[in-house]
Amino acid sequence: MKQITVGVIGTGRIGTIHAGNLAHMPGVQLKAVADPLVVPSEWEDRGVEALLDPHALIADSDIDAVLVCSPTPTHAELTMAAAETGKHVFCEKPIDLEPKRIRQTLEVVERSGVQLQVGFNRRFDPTFARLRRAVVDGEVGDLHMVKIVARDPAPPPAEYVRDSGGMFLDMTIHDFDMVRFLSGSEVLEVHAFGAVLVDPAIGEAGDVDTAVVTMKLANGGLAVIENSRRAVFGYDQRIEVFGSRGGIEAMNEYPYQVRQRTARGERKANPLYFFLQRYQRSFVAEVETFVDSVRQGRTPPVTGRDGLIPVLIGLAATESMRSHRPVRVESP
Amino acid sequence: MKQITVGVIGTGRIGTIHAGNLAHMPGVQLKAVADPLVVPSEWEDRGVEALLDPHALIADSDIDAVLVCSPTPTHAELTMAAAETGKHVFCEKPIDLEPKRIRQTLEVVERSGVQLQVGFNRRFDPTFARLRRAVVDGEVGDLHMVKIVARDPAPPPAEYVRDSGGMFLDMTIHDFDMVRFLSGSEVLEVHAFGAVLVDPAIGEAGDVDTAVVTMKLANGGLAVIENSRRAVFGYDQRIEVFGSRGGIEAMNEYPYQVRQRTARGERKANPLYFFLQRYQRSFVAEVETFVDSVRQGRTPPVTGRDGLIPVLIGLAATESMRSHRPVRVESP
Amino acid sequence: MKQITVGVIGTGRIGTIHAGNLAHMPGVQLKAVADPLVVPSEWEDRGVEALLDPHALIADSDIDAVLVCSPTPTHAELTMAAAETGKHVFCEKPIDLEPKRIRQTLEVVERSGVQLQVGFNRRFDPTFARLRRAVVDGEVGDLHMVKIVARDPAPPPAEYVRDSGGMFLDMTIHDFDMVRFLSGSEVLEVHAFGAVLVDPAIGEAGDVDTAVVTMKLANGGLAVIENSRRAVFGYDQRIEVFGSRGGIEAMNEYPYQVRQRTARGERKANPLYFFLQRYQRSFVAEVETFVDSVRQGRTPPVTGRDGLIPVLIGLAATESMRSHRPVRVESP
Amino acid sequence: MKQITVGVIGTGRIGTIHAGNLAHMPGVQLKAVADPLVVPSEWEDRGVEALLDPHALIADSDIDAVLVCSPTPTHAELTMAAAETGKHVFCEKPIDLEPKRIRQTLEVVERSGVQLQVGFNRRFDPTFARLRRAVVDGEVGDLHMVKIVARDPAPPPAEYVRDSGGMFLDMTIHDFDMVRFLSGSEVLEVHAFGAVLVDPAIGEAGDVDTAVVTMKLANGGLAVIENSRRAVFGYDQRIEVFGSRGGIEAMNEYPYQVRQRTARGERKANPLYFFLQRYQRSFVAEVETFVDSVRQGRTPPVTGRDGLIPVLIGLAATESMRSHRPVRVESP
Repeated sequence: MKQITVGVIGTGRIGTIHAGNLAHMPGVQLKAVADPLVVPSEWEDRGVEALLDPHALIADSDIDAVLVCSPTPTHAELTMAAAETGKHVFCEKPIDLEPKRIRQTLEVVERSGVQLQVGFNRRFDPTFARLRRAVVDGEVGDLHMVKIVARDPAPPPAEYVRDSGGMFLDMTIHDFDMVRFLSGSEVLEVHAFGAVLVDPAIGEAGDVDTAVVTMKLANGGLAVIENSRRAVFGYDQRIEVFGSRGGIEAMNEYPYQVRQRTARGERKANPLYFFLQRYQRSFVAEVETFVDSVRQGRTPPVTGRDGLIPVLIGLAATESMRSHRPVRVESP
Repeated sequence: MKQITVGVIGTGRIGTIHAGNLAHMPGVQLKAVADPLVVPSEWEDRGVEALLDPHALIADSDIDAVLVCSPTPTHAELTMAAAETGKHVFCEKPIDLEPKRIRQTLEVVERSGVQLQVGFNRRFDPTFARLRRAVVDGEVGDLHMVKIVARDPAPPPAEYVRDSGGMFLDMTIHDFDMVRFLSGSEVLEVHAFGAVLVDPAIGEAGDVDTAVVTMKLANGGLAVIENSRRAVFGYDQRIEVFGSRGGIEAMNEYPYQVRQRTARGERKANPLYFFLQRYQRSFVAEVETFVDSVRQGRTPPVTGRDGLIPVLIGLAATESMRSHRPVRVESP
Repeated sequence: MKQITVGVIGTGRIGTIHAGNLAHMPGVQLKAVADPLVVPSEWEDRGVEALLDPHALIADSDIDAVLVCSPTPTHAELTMAAAETGKHVFCEKPIDLEPKRIRQTLEVVERSGVQLQVGFNRRFDPTFARLRRAVVDGEVGDLHMVKIVARDPAPPPAEYVRDSGGMFLDMTIHDFDMVRFLSGSEVLEVHAFGAVLVDPAIGEAGDVDTAVVTMKLANGGLAVIENSRRAVFGYDQRIEVFGSRGGIEAMNEYPYQVRQRTARGERKANPLYFFLQRYQRSFVAEVETFVDSVRQGRTPPVTGRDGLIPVLIGLAATESMRSHRPVRVESP
Repeated sequence: MKQITVGVIGTGRIGTIHAGNLAHMPGVQLKAVADPLVVPSEWEDRGVEALLDPHALIADSDIDAVLVCSPTPTHAELTMAAAETGKHVFCEKPIDLEPKRIRQTLEVVERSGVQLQVGFNRRFDPTFARLRRAVVDGEVGDLHMVKIVARDPAPPPAEYVRDSGGMFLDMTIHDFDMVRFLSGSEVLEVHAFGAVLVDPAIGEAGDVDTAVVTMKLANGGLAVIENSRRAVFGYDQRIEVFGSRGGIEAMNEYPYQVRQRTARGERKANPLYFFLQRYQRSFVAEVETFVDSVRQGRTPPVTGRDGLIPVLIGLAATESMRSHRPVRVESP
């Protein structure tokens, strides 16, 4: 098995998770991490170089592939810099909030001839992957409807919201990717109703915290996404795909499978609390897939184009909500 | 207990069900039915007069209350005629497809001082009634979202579709009523995407068979209804109400509660096949409630105004789909 | 359709239910009820004679069939008396607590040439009937195991327990019948462990309130019944049949199908509270079946022998618990 | 964190799993494995010594703790040898099939002053641990009943069965441990019915493949275990604990949470196929707990006595089935 040497840029929450997963993968060497706030002692014990400057990591000619897990505004620049040195790139979503800048990044990647995978990890969740297989294998028949409920357990701080690009680009973007992934079809047109029901500070920051987005798909089907920034019972991630031969539904996942019977009714635990627990396996699988793609010189299953289009859908949804009409999605 | 004497106009499917239920109710005498196609032998054995002319039934001064179960185009006229003779009226939905004609009917009823109940039976379903209680009792907290899935097991013939007023007035009208009933709020604005995915003949008849309708509510919340004219697994009637204190979900109901484990996976039976089975208890309860309202001189819980507003919402949804924009619901 | 004239002996809880169901059945006339404690006004308004003396009812030559719903000690005598006048008999379970007396009753019935159905209503429950079909149709393959959980919501008073014949003859008897019904096989041998965990007064009355009974079946399979006199969450009636091709499980039934999500976990309502609600449909179906059997001269599906054998199993279980060893079931 | 150096004896299925898990644990060095059939190249690449002779591993004074994962007949001897050199021991279940030999082993361990943990991994399963917490925290109230269903997906070969000590010592032993773990009580008396329904070769080897075992517990409660060597739908591991305040039920676990609706009914996937998948997390947790116990000098939560008692219960069950009577469990 060909050994792959990798570096991780950004040692925040998701970068640390990826680094931990890479450490357990056979045939992979995590050589360095880079982050202006890195704590060297946490890494050097494990034999990993801890750099302050991402560009120093990118300049390391031993490194075959880079995971870009730094803040969103740096994604495009670091992806381009890494590609230009011939490194394969795994870039967390979104590549950027500006389609123009994403397109520029994709051109650099294209020109450099490296692989690029975008971090839409949910495609690698075993439950959602089962739904996709049901569509591909014809179990659902002709696809009529994709329905997604995605609710966070608690809203982010309003200051986070201010720079997030808005709920549709920050949170719903995963669901837009899921509509494309499950349907195998493109989104033509979007309509969004939004509301501020969870936290007035989110409204003051110019965003909504509750929304329902409907879509027309190129294959003739429809889709609907319902989002909330707060479900008091935890992370609520349910999807239903429906078609001419029936439906298939992804339910929530739980820390244990227990049903309790009491004088006051039957009880079950709440679902896994948040995305780190719920999508734990998907984070491992997406990086394994990236490493395999690099090793075998294959195009990864989540391409740069897959990174661009959900941003275009999110911008259309934002525009729909503002202009109070359905909006066509811009061509990639 | 005061004896109530009733007549049923229309001996089709729903009229026959109501007549059968009335026959078992204590304190109720079903004196007559009327239908141009009535089969007298089916009724006279049970001591019920079988008339051809609804107006003969309306003219019978022994009869306190009339159930109008004839075809939709006759509802308004027969309701007015019965009200003018001082009879209380239970009228199947919709009163009419024309708001103007519904308003005229409501004026006649108002002037006559009789009770009028409209046949939105689903409000009397024990499962949906439980959801309403959860909202009223504050179990859901502030209401953020009402989500309805309503799918029929098989589409109606295209010729039926042609005269039905369209899916939104024929099928979704129950769901519009349910949004109002569960939320306790009015619908301000509607957006609809529709598609013809089940039967091209429905498209040729000028209607859609698949739709997703989103709504803004006066209380600030949102609602979404998803409809299909065909779910191959049977009648699919699920509702979720979600708010600041959590959610509550009405699941499908089944002929028996059995889980089968086989080499090919776990299996459950399909849900109760169609509305007659699924809503059987609600048909009994709505007519009991009507009879009680008449007996006690109380306003029934589903008023003429409740009959008008879902038609206005349905017309707004139809207009949204045609004009390709969200549409405000007309004032009742 | 041949008209059947029936009388009901015993106007306690179950007799009143059967009388109410008979009143709604086409082709059936409920002519009389008989009970030393009958309240005539409750019956005469509905055109039903109210007699104090069961033998007066038995003597009425208009009556074709009698339902014996009086206290257990009178079952055998009244069944014999009715049979001897040529009346068909539906007898509530058990026919008697003494096998000898049951055998004597069955001989009289046999000699009289009338039909006898014993009130094991649960065979007519749609959920359990589905399990039986799965066995008969080979969906379960060779039958390896029948597992029954049967728990009451609350224990009976200790004075009731004293005359009940003990839990195995009073409560488990239904489960013994269910083992035979589902397996289509006889019980060869029984072992029982019992305990007094719910109410010490039940122990003082010489009975147990918690038990687990295991059985060897003639077809080679095994069975296990678990009973409790009190489940604080309501009536708990679950059955699993398992065999070479998999299993099938009857779950509890609920007043409505609702799943609630709250900060403190998911909640469902408790099951239907007690046997009157849970087995409501089965009470209608068993009496319909009895009337049909009488009308068509067919042997009813629950025979006198089916009334005898569960008593023999119950006696073997009682003996096992007392003698502290497995006990063979006496031959019918 | 104190570094712990470990060796694994036996590189079969379970030894390899433990070795893999140890490799990922912080503060643990896996220094050597030993097995007459070891494949050195599989281990030396990872920096692990591969020995043929377990005693060579035991003689290595660098090693603090040994995992005994070799065939059952060698467990006692290797545990004693390791203890005598002052090594802490994790021993797979059962320590031996002979109580006398287990007692001798426990005496040597006691005298050597080392820690011993026995491999009842299921106690570390998050779902079963939740049940135990419900008992400990009083959510179940007084414990009345422990019910276990444990079915394997496929029977072992008859030659395996011949040396296994019989189903009760080979398979049910886990369930006996679970009864003790969940109830916090000892088993006083056991009754077993067994049958050969899955594979006649198992019967010819002198064993059964289907059984139902009932137990009286020291706390007054009852327990029942139902076993089968073959459930065609996969590994079936369900437990219910019931008491004065209600019940709590551990359900099966599934590869994904999907509900599919088709014309032929609702479908779910089958449960995780076998113990390696179902109890994966418990294998990690039990070894982590062992390492922590060694590190902190604490008695592990599954002691040598916990290894002895289930064997005594299994022997009582075997004797019950043979002698056709309930049997008291021998004192440890």
